[in-house]
Amino acid sequence: MDNLLKSGERIDQLIARGVKIIQSPDVFSFSLDAVLLAYFASIPKKGTIVDFCSGNGAVALFMAPKTKASITGIELQERLADMGKRSILLNELEEQVTMEQLDIKEVSTKIKSDSVDFITCNPPYFKEQPNSKKNPNPYYAIARHEIHLQLDDVFKSASKLLKMNGKIAMVHRPDRLMDILDSMRNHRIAPKKIQFIYPKVGKEANTILIEGIKDGKTDGLKILPPLYVYGEDNEYLPEIKEMLHGTK
Amino acid sequence: MDNLLKSGERIDQLIARGVKIIQSPDVFSFSLDAVLLAYFASIPKKGTIVDFCSGNGAVALFMAPKTKASITGIELQERLADMGKRSILLNELEEQVTMEQLDIKEVSTKIKSDSVDFITCNPPYFKEQPNSKKNPNPYYAIARHEIHLQLDDVFKSASKLLKMNGKIAMVHRPDRLMDILDSMRNHRIAPKKIQFIYPKVGKEANTILIEGIKDGKTDGLKILPPLYVYGEDNEYLPEIKEMLHGTK
Repeated sequence: MDNLLKSGERIDQLIARGVKIIQSPDVFSFSLDAVLLAYFASIPKKGTIVDFCSGNGAVALFMAPKTKASITGIELQERLADMGKRSILLNELEEQVTMEQLDIKEVSTKIKSDSVDFITCNPPYFKEQPNSKKNPNPYYAIARHEIHLQLDDVFKSASKLLKMNGKIAMVHRPDRLMDILDSMRNHRIAPKKIQFIYPKVGKEANTILIEGIKDGKTDGLKILPPLYVYGEDNEYLPEIKEMLHGTK
Repeated sequence: MDNLLKSGERIDQLIARGVKIIQSPDVFSFSLDAVLLAYFASIPKKGTIVDFCSGNGAVALFMAPKTKASITGIELQERLADMGKRSILLNELEEQVTMEQLDIKEVSTKIKSDSVDFITCNPPYFKEQPNSKKNPNPYYAIARHEIHLQLDDVFKSASKLLKMNGKIAMVHRPDRLMDILDSMRNHRIAPKKIQFIYPKVGKEANTILIEGIKDGKTDGLKILPPLYVYGEDNEYLPEIKEMLHGTK
């Protein structure tokens, strides 16, 4: 197994899903947001799933045990896509999961329009502005800031790929809610369920999970029960521990 | 005091705010939503407040102890406005609070454009559709269904009345969120804070509180901590009891 690892890399596990992920603090490590997204998503039992902004493939790999669908991760950064490819081998999931190094804006060169049942996306969260402070590590800067990919590009490409009534699930920041809803509308995706994640009781939400349906009706939006991450002792709460470790 | 009451009416109290409200089960009783709205609203310390769809004046009266602003309730139904007028007298608030029987769509005939600091609104929640089931009691039907007033009329009139950077706070149903956001945008009101109300732990939200600012920036939306109404024992939770009774 170790021959799959490059310098500075390690293998982390999402025990709850029995999946191992190659990570590197210098390059990319998946966050709790990836785990939350994989749990929130209404993963279809079969068909075709595409994971946009796949990073080291964490969301794609977390979904694999829950579906017979084929899953394709799309990641712009070669180094991250390479980690994802090796994680697929590590989990012996090469029959089900593939990783493509590709710009989301070019995804329709590889994947047919109107062919996808479900898309997940953990996109860059931060607006790219002149003089905005970015992570000095270019891998993280590209993953976190809208340098190469804007929110609207995500929904544009998603809408092209999705079948009618196909769905997209995204994790993002609540202060971008208006941008997300605008972009979904622009690309004929109707929001159907939203869940807000709160770091602690009494705090404002710091994460939003949102799922929409292509060419769906705009009524019937559901706001799921809230989810808290940390207890007063700053430890993960039981629901979060269960997502990570499979037990409370 | 009793000479303020008509047949079938009674006096209820919001003890936490020391306010008495004339109610009638046959005509109109304020709901918890009115209390939630009055607590959620960023009530200005002074200036001019208008309460749209004021019913028996509950929201207007609940806000009065928290501000020196003048408060005007606007209510279409004569019978409800009349209850509100008598509740104002009952609380000896006639110097601060007034009630106008008026259609929200005509409100600018009585209140100057660009003159109001803050608006509250607990509007009819349900879309009016051919064949839609309505409450057989016409008072409740008009208060709850968009028979005489559509959501967009509310924001249109609000935007006309509000000063630049004036605010409107509304209580509504989460499944109308998209309609609310669309209408706010159409009338230059930027959403700034949202709170979802959940009937119980583990249930979907059934109420949304939303506040927006006229001609404000569209970024910086905050999702406030969630609020639960009932415990497992189906009794009000301490936070709700405190809103109603002033003690947990």
